[in-house]
Amino acid sequence: MNHQTNLIDLGDLSFHHWKEIVGLALKIQEHPSDFYGALTGKILATLFYEPSTRTQMSFQTAMLRLGGQVIGFDNPQNSSVAKGENLKDTITVVSSYADIIAMRHPLEGAAKAAALHANCPVINAGDGGHLHPTQTLTDLTTLSKYKGRLSGLTIGLCGDLKYGRTVHSLIKALCHFPNNEFVLISTEELSVPSYITDLLDAHGCHYQKISALTDAIPELDVLYMTRVQQERFASQEEYLAQKDVYVLDAEKLSGAKKDLCILHPLPRVDEIQIAVDDDPRACYFKQAQCGVYARMALILTMLQRPELCGQPLFSGKESKIHACTNPKCITNQESYLPRHFVENGDLLVCEYCDQRILI
Amino acid sequence: MNHQTNLIDLGDLSFHHWKEIVGLALKIQEHPSDFYGALTGKILATLFYEPSTRTQMSFQTAMLRLGGQVIGFDNPQNSSVAKGENLKDTITVVSSYADIIAMRHPLEGAAKAAALHANCPVINAGDGGHLHPTQTLTDLTTLSKYKGRLSGLTIGLCGDLKYGRTVHSLIKALCHFPNNEFVLISTEELSVPSYITDLLDAHGCHYQKISALTDAIPELDVLYMTRVQQERFASQEEYLAQKDVYVLDAEKLSGAKKDLCILHPLPRVDEIQIAVDDDPRACYFKQAQCGVYARMALILTMLQRPELCGQPLFSGKESKIHACTNPKCITNQESYLPRHFVENGDLLVCEYCDQRILI
Amino acid sequence: MNHQTNLIDLGDLSFHHWKEIVGLALKIQEHPSDFYGALTGKILATLFYEPSTRTQMSFQTAMLRLGGQVIGFDNPQNSSVAKGENLKDTITVVSSYADIIAMRHPLEGAAKAAALHANCPVINAGDGGHLHPTQTLTDLTTLSKYKGRLSGLTIGLCGDLKYGRTVHSLIKALCHFPNNEFVLISTEELSVPSYITDLLDAHGCHYQKISALTDAIPELDVLYMTRVQQERFASQEEYLAQKDVYVLDAEKLSGAKKDLCILHPLPRVDEIQIAVDDDPRACYFKQAQCGVYARMALILTMLQRPELCGQPLFSGKESKIHACTNPKCITNQESYLPRHFVENGDLLVCEYCDQRILI
Repeated sequence: MNHQTNLIDLGDLSFHHWKEIVGLALKIQEHPSDFYGALTGKILATLFYEPSTRTQMSFQTAMLRLGGQVIGFDNPQNSSVAKGENLKDTITVVSSYADIIAMRHPLEGAAKAAALHANCPVINAGDGGHLHPTQTLTDLTTLSKYKGRLSGLTIGLCGDLKYGRTVHSLIKALCHFPNNEFVLISTEELSVPSYITDLLDAHGCHYQKISALTDAIPELDVLYMTRVQQERFASQEEYLAQKDVYVLDAEKLSGAKKDLCILHPLPRVDEIQIAVDDDPRACYFKQAQCGVYARMALILTMLQRPELCGQPLFSGKESKIHACTNPKCITNQESYLPRHFVENGDLLVCEYCDQRILI
Repeated sequence: MNHQTNLIDLGDLSFHHWKEIVGLALKIQEHPSDFYGALTGKILATLFYEPSTRTQMSFQTAMLRLGGQVIGFDNPQNSSVAKGENLKDTITVVSSYADIIAMRHPLEGAAKAAALHANCPVINAGDGGHLHPTQTLTDLTTLSKYKGRLSGLTIGLCGDLKYGRTVHSLIKALCHFPNNEFVLISTEELSVPSYITDLLDAHGCHYQKISALTDAIPELDVLYMTRVQQERFASQEEYLAQKDVYVLDAEKLSGAKKDLCILHPLPRVDEIQIAVDDDPRACYFKQAQCGVYARMALILTMLQRPELCGQPLFSGKESKIHACTNPKCITNQESYLPRHFVENGDLLVCEYCDQRILI
Repeated sequence: MNHQTNLIDLGDLSFHHWKEIVGLALKIQEHPSDFYGALTGKILATLFYEPSTRTQMSFQTAMLRLGGQVIGFDNPQNSSVAKGENLKDTITVVSSYADIIAMRHPLEGAAKAAALHANCPVINAGDGGHLHPTQTLTDLTTLSKYKGRLSGLTIGLCGDLKYGRTVHSLIKALCHFPNNEFVLISTEELSVPSYITDLLDAHGCHYQKISALTDAIPELDVLYMTRVQQERFASQEEYLAQKDVYVLDAEKLSGAKKDLCILHPLPRVDEIQIAVDDDPRACYFKQAQCGVYARMALILTMLQRPELCGQPLFSGKESKIHACTNPKCITNQESYLPRHFVENGDLLVCEYCDQRILI
């Protein structure tokens, strides 16, 4: 039943196609009314197994602004899930109601598992701490719009670089474009995982690690802020000592370029002071708006040019003997799912959640 | 204020009209886009006093695919009900907002009570354990589509035949068609109530009771599976001894006809093994999809040909002295409702919940 | 970012414009289909920080019947708010998704705070016990429709006149029209605040205070009933002694005029007996329906003739030293909001919640 058109990871699309979708997003933003009615009669199902009103409203707005309609849920307690229904059954049925599904789920690999059983295209709207490709598409659209380019940029990333999936995805995307440099601003404990620095090295991207935002800010074209949760710090003392170092305020901004572009995936708590909102360099609210155009472009492309998003879900082999060791992997909740791994030396990489397993 | 067009029980419609609605559902399924826009500007209110995401999304999809729009709630805690509002007031107001209402309620007879006060047509989307006519309409549509006929069938019904309202309704519907035979597969404790066997006798339908699915399966054209809750068994020992007898798996299926049609109202838990899903005889997901077409046909008929569904709500008499003895009857919660009974010998039958009361 | 078109208080509109909007509501009610499609492609966001299904469905119906679409939430637990997001951020983002916002919030002044940051028009759909202007617009529309005039009326208001914001707003609105008289029917403890009687005096309106509904009823053209919560009474004995005095029943109605118009903002509990519903003078369900037309007229006016609703949000001055003393004022939850007060002798009046503060 596996439908071939899906967006599970931005990497499912070729680099060339990202640019097409971003280009379409910008075109929609210029002339939104030209696209109203493009999907009249089509239905998007937003299946949110954990609440995320912002992302859900962004998808809903995108579909409605194309003339389509929306069904869905935002609360699994109200759904058949509460009666013990498995993901496969829910997805099989809903994909016979809707023309396209956007799914958010707390477990990693859930969107791929859904795509495996859906009779319509599936968009990953976030699978636990794993992937969130439409956020990255939003970020690329925002940079194209407000910086005019995706290459030749010096990009600062500040905050929780260890667990922040939006940061990882953005780095993965931007290292495909020439002459981008990265400034990684965090405590030692919250610095990027080694697979990210490996990736930067592999692409020959210049990067530096810096521990104070003030030191990093003058050279940046883009500053991508993220939330740092208090419990991520080594200790309460460490938190109190460090927290202001990663809060953007007018004083720190005084050293920045005139055309700096400040981004944040939102919601923020207090890592950007409210006074910064009135600075013309603050682009995070525009970024949220770009998210609607990016999602319009994605949905339109998936429904009208499905061949662009036609990746096989698995490239490795099914295994009857190995299980994924990640307790948050969807395969450990939904036991009927075929286990799929890519072999990589003496490692198996789970094709749902990317967990690496020593054989 | 009582609006004359409603669907409270499938029995409200003549046998002839069921066939018209099923025929329309099949026509819609063939050419869905011909019907898009038929209800532009109309609003369906889905009032779900208990959550049932599946059924609610099926109704929403049906309305949207006709070009209409949807309002409603799925959580009485968020509604005026939480402020102590009675059903009459909610229905009176909502029926002045919407053009048609689909209502789900935990109490028996609630849909009829709603119809009594609504200024627009009401569809019963399930009233406690009592009636669920759009499920039966779905089942009839599925059989018409995938068996090509509603007569001359040998239909097995397996699982909880005592409390399963979908099973009772399907039997009541199918015994109106010629040459249907029924195989009732359950434990002794969970066999059909006597009023169902009385009905089968009255229609001259052949039926047999069998206690093991394996024995029953070879002669069946249709197998309707239902969930058996553990607490329905006489004891834990009984449950452990019996549970596998009522689970459909590949082995049991090996003895079945090549063109068997397997149905299930969903959600399932584990009474059909997942491996069966890939068997071409598994029709339960197609059945869920047929549910959308059946509901499209029903809504369209009720709004465009209201005379077809124009039954009086009551045929008996109002009583000022008798009360219904069913604690789950809506009349025992909403005390302003007129009590209505049909006299049947020395019995009174409640016209809301069908409870029989000895005078 | 402050958008100039908003409806925070009915007083934001000139008396002349109320009449235009009410007139449009009546025109829509006569020929609703003429207005279908007027807002095709537009999106209303209903942001309900506390649930009020009735009001939310009224807004949704209004927008859908104009051909527009709806996004929103009804449960802050499912929204970004639960992640600690401030009102400003939510409103900034949502107002870049939607074309108009209707917001309900438990804190007083919240709608004005939202308007301060929105990039689209904001409608106050209730801010705590403070304002609820679309209810008043509904009441004016209902009186225009069913009494044929807004002047020369004797209006009884019965129940909780102390805390009932709908009562206060209606009095404020109707005292602008000539020759209206008010009969204020309540216990001493629940009589109107002095600022209301001050206002009536200022407009030269005749009014009387009466403690029993039966005594008041014969001279009334309009009877506006409201709910009295048991805990509002001085004691349990007082409640038991008094409660029936404020319950409308057929007996009390027997002394009323033939063309009395009975209103209630709904939901009711038991302050109007159900038997009264069948009396042709009962207009409260028609009133709920008028609410949809009133909201259609308002949304249409705000989007098509924005100059009509273009009031500045503040007329006083910002203060860096004073804080509002009302614990339910939005400024005491959202600390970044600028404090604004109007000076009035030795009082400061908070421009969010109207709290009066002694300097």
